Amino acid sequence: MKPLILITNDDGVAAQGLQALANVAHEFGDVVVMAPMMNSSGKSMSLTSDRPLRVNEVNVADGLSVYACDGTPVDCIKLAVEHFCPSRPSLVLSGINHGSNSSINVLYSGTMGAAMEANALGFPAIGFSLLHHSPKADFGPSIPYVRHIISHVLEHGLPDGVALNVNIPRLDADHIKGIRVCHQAKAMWLDSFEKRIDPIGRPYWWLTGKFVCDNPPATSDEHLLADGYVTVVPIHSDYTHYPAIDQLKSLQELK
Amino acid sequence: MKPLILITNDDGVAAQGLQALANVAHEFGDVVVMAPMMNSSGKSMSLTSDRPLRVNEVNVADGLSVYACDGTPVDCIKLAVEHFCPSRPSLVLSGINHGSNSSINVLYSGTMGAAMEANALGFPAIGFSLLHHSPKADFGPSIPYVRHIISHVLEHGLPDGVALNVNIPRLDADHIKGIRVCHQAKAMWLDSFEKRIDPIGRPYWWLTGKFVCDNPPATSDEHLLADGYVTVVPIHSDYTHYPAIDQLKSLQELK
Repeated sequence: MKPLILITNDDGVAAQGLQALANVAHEFGDVVVMAPMMNSSGKSMSLTSDRPLRVNEVNVADGLSVYACDGTPVDCIKLAVEHFCPSRPSLVLSGINHGSNSSINVLYSGTMGAAMEANALGFPAIGFSLLHHSPKADFGPSIPYVRHIISHVLEHGLPDGVALNVNIPRLDADHIKGIRVCHQAKAMWLDSFEKRIDPIGRPYWWLTGKFVCDNPPATSDEHLLADGYVTVVPIHSDYTHYPAIDQLKSLQELK
Repeated sequence: MKPLILITNDDGVAAQGLQALANVAHEFGDVVVMAPMMNSSGKSMSLTSDRPLRVNEVNVADGLSVYACDGTPVDCIKLAVEHFCPSRPSLVLSGINHGSNSSINVLYSGTMGAAMEANALGFPAIGFSLLHHSPKADFGPSIPYVRHIISHVLEHGLPDGVALNVNIPRLDADHIKGIRVCHQAKAMWLDSFEKRIDPIGRPYWWLTGKFVCDNPPATSDEHLLADGYVTVVPIHSDYTHYPAIDQLKSLQELK
């Protein structure tokens, strides 16, 4: 029996990265795509509860159906699983994102928010990102790696509670060195808001930022991407810092 | 020298929980509040890059200044740190949220998204939540615990890279048993979208959901809250599941 694969992204339903991912997934089984109508980059795990959601049928067919939803990537996963998938998905994919979701970018990413949501709901989930922001990025060199990782996860599954954050360097096929399973690098966005004045004389602030990741360890995604590898970071939705539980016991001494 | 404390929330600048938190923080030092103009519950770590931000001065005074921003809780932290704090904050607080952010709710919460952001930027950060959704919730019984935890963190700091997720049960002061430092419970929202039909005959879907957390372990926040304790979960922004790195090494065998 063919597996059912559910796909979303955060760049929106028309993004080339989404189409590239859907095409590869379709080699393995039936595909349902539910993606945001609008660009939803930086939406993290944001969800919509204060208004209802609308859905447009973009292309509904046997084997590959595409829907656009006016919610966030997390909304897309929640709604598609309950109302638009003909059966329980065997795998949930997100991407291919136009731009990096390595290191701290995983926190803000709508693409990875959707993968985290699928993981929280108990599905094997993978988010894919190419380190190239352009809407016209070339996803060709990524495809063999996307295919390999999907195939591996469909065959072997994932450790309990684990999803994958896959980032692919912006290199020609000949220059990608292979795949490395690794950990998230510690990094930071040094934010800078440009203060501007509108035509009426009132101020507004526009987010810019500089990515700072000094000397990432050789075992981290940021280092390995710079070295030419596709990186796979196993992630989970337990934010607890376990060693700190004991370190903070003195906090309990109120009464 | 007085510490500077930066505060935000996700319920919006007019929320009683925010005012309760600002009042306690003001006992310890100068306070800058920058909170969303609108309710931003469920915004997670969402940020705004596709449009500029506006800021209204609600009450700007020596010692306690309040601003409203039309962005997300994460936007509020980023913008306030750079443009509205007279010096580097000693501590960043978020809340007091009207409603639980225990277990999996930490992923979706705008309140906790702001605390995670402050943590990622290198500040000691604490998110506070009361298990009571009402806009008129009574924050009185929470105050001694909020005061104790702020005081403790100002005095002792936090372990490197760690922020705190504090949840307070909805109980009278006499029935709160104390504080427990613990871990996030595994839980899930079983989502259910009500499908409705608009006056023109078109469908829309509205998010509802049922929180599912079966038999949480005695060491988890969900269990301890039900048992009458204030829970403190140390959290961090490294999503890596380290044991899975070795388990997934076979993924590397492409070439």
